[in-house]
Amino acid sequence: MQRYKLTLEYDGSTYCGWQKQPGLKSVEQTLIDAFFKLTSLDVEIVGAGRTDAGVHALGQVAHVDLPERYDAETVLRAINSHLRGEAVVLKDVSPVSPTFHARFDARERSYRYIILERAAFPTFQRGHVWHVYRPLNLKHLQEGASFFLGHHDFSSFRASECQAKSPLKTIDKFSVTKEGELVFFDVTARSFLHHQVRNMVGTLKLVGEGKLTPSDIKRILLEKSRAAAGPTAPPQGLFLTRVFYEG
Amino acid sequence: MQRYKLTLEYDGSTYCGWQKQPGLKSVEQTLIDAFFKLTSLDVEIVGAGRTDAGVHALGQVAHVDLPERYDAETVLRAINSHLRGEAVVLKDVSPVSPTFHARFDARERSYRYIILERAAFPTFQRGHVWHVYRPLNLKHLQEGASFFLGHHDFSSFRASECQAKSPLKTIDKFSVTKEGELVFFDVTARSFLHHQVRNMVGTLKLVGEGKLTPSDIKRILLEKSRAAAGPTAPPQGLFLTRVFYEG
Repeated sequence: MQRYKLTLEYDGSTYCGWQKQPGLKSVEQTLIDAFFKLTSLDVEIVGAGRTDAGVHALGQVAHVDLPERYDAETVLRAINSHLRGEAVVLKDVSPVSPTFHARFDARERSYRYIILERAAFPTFQRGHVWHVYRPLNLKHLQEGASFFLGHHDFSSFRASECQAKSPLKTIDKFSVTKEGELVFFDVTARSFLHHQVRNMVGTLKLVGEGKLTPSDIKRILLEKSRAAAGPTAPPQGLFLTRVFYEG
Repeated sequence: MQRYKLTLEYDGSTYCGWQKQPGLKSVEQTLIDAFFKLTSLDVEIVGAGRTDAGVHALGQVAHVDLPERYDAETVLRAINSHLRGEAVVLKDVSPVSPTFHARFDARERSYRYIILERAAFPTFQRGHVWHVYRPLNLKHLQEGASFFLGHHDFSSFRASECQAKSPLKTIDKFSVTKEGELVFFDVTARSFLHHQVRNMVGTLKLVGEGKLTPSDIKRILLEKSRAAAGPTAPPQGLFLTRVFYEG
């Protein structure tokens, strides 16, 4: 068998999330079905992370083992052909060592969250942004985000169903920028707790609206209580943009 | 009555085009219906240009006359509220002189055409790009586009059903740029013939593929025959980006 690293893009709007679930349309099952059409095998696909329903990916990574008669270029073309009509595509297929693991070997994950800030409803960006009616204070968003940088206990920003053993995580980068009507939140860490990015953005939105001050972020981190933070930002604004590996 | 200038954004995917047609869902009729909900009047809406089915707008302009009891801010908010669930929104409403005419007073119109250039099918950009599988030669696209600049007889790039009296038009700007997988064609002129932008892009694509040379554009212009040029690019890659007025 040959192991392949797959780089994937998908519009999460029409999927129940990455993970397969009986009776629902998942990204994982859609890929498994496409590989079955090529190989007549029921392959296992291991993703770097499980995105929730409605969450998108520009650079999700997964690995799969295939019989050696398939080369990378053939896999790329054939699978994309079988994915025609779906909202998931392979952007790259590369042969890797049989010891490569898409989830455990990931050194950093980057997410982008997009807010559309305007009075009018979204047209082109529907399903791909969080729409807010009133302008947010960019400087306060940036100040608030800076308190997330570094090593913290993120209990206040952790979903109740999160299965991670420890609430300690390290945020390596967190930038907030604005281009026209769009506000981009770009976050990088080795790994995240369940809903962590959406909970951080949902709380920063309150800072941008003036309902919290930037330094309230520091206080909320120290409270280590989900009740202290703001609501979870909706899934449709979130994109898994990149997964980094060594080498 | 007070005349208002309306600036509009719409996703053309679900409309039969700008112009109202019996039994079909047009941008114009969708706006008329929204204004009826606010005013109980059957208003006339005059657009700067009639976009075809599937063609989008980021900055379409129109005018409408309303009873004086409505101010601009109220119109903007109320109409956008009545447009909820539609793929058209008002971006701006400004009071103008009763002599202002959205179509006849327009000095320049700018269009953007977007090609997605990659092996994989579009996901997020589906319905908003022309998807081409193989890379186009950017330098040749730019050289070819430069032959369109200035005053020419555009008979070779004119739809058979075009109703303009003269095939003479002046292209003021035509840039071709690339950002990642996207190729942007940005064109500005006082006005265009029917399908002119799509016919120019459809012909340039042949230049980018090496099926025509850049200087073939010059020859095709001189032939003054629709048969000499390439096919019409599909509507979903075209965006009316701006309409300019004096003052």
